[in-house]
Amino acid sequence: MLNLVFLAGLLIFAISSAYFYFAGRNKADLNTAFLVSFVTLISYVLMWQGNLTVVTQAGQAIFWTRWLFYALSCTLLMIEIAQLKRIQGGERAQLVYLTAIVMVTGFLAARDLTAIRWAHFAISSVAYVLMVIKVLSVKAPGAQWVRSYIFFGWTVFPIVFLLAPTGLGLIGAAVANLLYLLLDIYTKIVFSIQLGKTSAETPPA
Amino acid sequence: MLNLVFLAGLLIFAISSAYFYFAGRNKADLNTAFLVSFVTLISYVLMWQGNLTVVTQAGQAIFWTRWLFYALSCTLLMIEIAQLKRIQGGERAQLVYLTAIVMVTGFLAARDLTAIRWAHFAISSVAYVLMVIKVLSVKAPGAQWVRSYIFFGWTVFPIVFLLAPTGLGLIGAAVANLLYLLLDIYTKIVFSIQLGKTSAETPPA
Amino acid sequence: MLNLVFLAGLLIFAISSAYFYFAGRNKADLNTAFLVSFVTLISYVLMWQGNLTVVTQAGQAIFWTRWLFYALSCTLLMIEIAQLKRIQGGERAQLVYLTAIVMVTGFLAARDLTAIRWAHFAISSVAYVLMVIKVLSVKAPGAQWVRSYIFFGWTVFPIVFLLAPTGLGLIGAAVANLLYLLLDIYTKIVFSIQLGKTSAETPPA
Repeated sequence: MLNLVFLAGLLIFAISSAYFYFAGRNKADLNTAFLVSFVTLISYVLMWQGNLTVVTQAGQAIFWTRWLFYALSCTLLMIEIAQLKRIQGGERAQLVYLTAIVMVTGFLAARDLTAIRWAHFAISSVAYVLMVIKVLSVKAPGAQWVRSYIFFGWTVFPIVFLLAPTGLGLIGAAVANLLYLLLDIYTKIVFSIQLGKTSAETPPA
Repeated sequence: MLNLVFLAGLLIFAISSAYFYFAGRNKADLNTAFLVSFVTLISYVLMWQGNLTVVTQAGQAIFWTRWLFYALSCTLLMIEIAQLKRIQGGERAQLVYLTAIVMVTGFLAARDLTAIRWAHFAISSVAYVLMVIKVLSVKAPGAQWVRSYIFFGWTVFPIVFLLAPTGLGLIGAAVANLLYLLLDIYTKIVFSIQLGKTSAETPPA
Repeated sequence: MLNLVFLAGLLIFAISSAYFYFAGRNKADLNTAFLVSFVTLISYVLMWQGNLTVVTQAGQAIFWTRWLFYALSCTLLMIEIAQLKRIQGGERAQLVYLTAIVMVTGFLAARDLTAIRWAHFAISSVAYVLMVIKVLSVKAPGAQWVRSYIFFGWTVFPIVFLLAPTGLGLIGAAVANLLYLLLDIYTKIVFSIQLGKTSAETPPA
């Protein structure tokens, strides 16, 4: 089951990498949609291989590498969101740092099987809340949909983390990784398609 | 004793993170003071947990993760120092790279218990000297205090490294980490408060 | 033999670091040639030490740390190449990301002794081809030599990777690392000297 989830993720992100690469080939700019899918593809290959995990007392595997790859892909996504919301300079850098901190502390919490993982989880949550407050406080025309995208996309990740073997262990590794796959598709593929449409409709700043 | 030092560091940097966050909330810029304290907080949580260490033959623990977090916090500090000294563009990038090299080779020297750690220490020292020469060669009005801050703050770190179990082992892990904590407070909290005052007094470039 | 190769690399890049540092001392810009040599020096010290390796079934050591240091040095080189070719902004960022992906997936392929390393190798190759296509598609006056430099310099790396214990194992660790050393000298020292001449001849953009 777990292997199937990772294989599905691998195939889906291989296809989306190819799609976004060709769709954005003629833009003389950073092809974020392609890079995000490509980094996620690498992450799924590594989880599919499966030798970089820790195992909980309940015998559930935790694939902590996921969070290191999110540190790369989600900072790229944050740069796009900031651009859409016309957040520039130091404020944008602050959002990118906070996103990286959320993911690196998520990695520390995932790797750690002791109770101290809750300290990492708490710090990650604080960074996440500070990031969300900052993003949502800025309103930009044509970017209202980002609000619901962040609430229903990004915020579900820490909830799954909490329920999964990384947290309370109420759901198993297979279900957790299936939920993460669905979230990855929503936040990295659906989002990029929606963003492409928004960019086509609204003029640049 | 060691646990107490890390717990103290954890609490102090939790408080300073909160303080700098609220103090800088209304600045539409990168809140470096907050990010530096926040990254240091994560570093102390990880050292408090204590499972990422190597142990010397004399039975002293070396907390090598410290230097990886310095790579992040000290590059942020270096950007601030460069700004204060009006160092821009490629020269600023050079300082940031050198700072990162100092810390990553410090990490390599700390993780390594063989004699080859002295080679890493030597490279780290060369990078440090090149960085200090560059910083001190630029004089800017209102930034004279940075000179003594670097001499009494940053330069003491390699001296502690040399005396600690990472180097000659003349002092134990507890004393070394207590000294690092005092240095962290001086270079990351006291410095940021002093920098805030300087920024308020001198007009931007 | 292996130790001799690494010791030679260590000495050569110590000398080139010193040379490029003094040659570029008066430029008020990023001294890329120096930083690239300096990062490579650190890489050789670490390989000379030799405790961060995996050993294949045939008893050959793989020094996977090499690829992590390439992630740093080759992104620096890519920034120089992009500057020479007048590639700016998002397109330059794209090249830097692709270069980093090539090296990080190279690291993953090198660390992995299972058949799945070929998946990492394939992804690395795709990223490499996309990068080369982008670099070669842009023509700039005085930068024609970069074409042959990339073909005879950079492209030989994945070929050695394929023949070495990391791939098919047709050549041993000693020969592989000797070839890498020659490539390092060509792509990091000879290239930087040639680049310095080109920069002196052509006016900046």
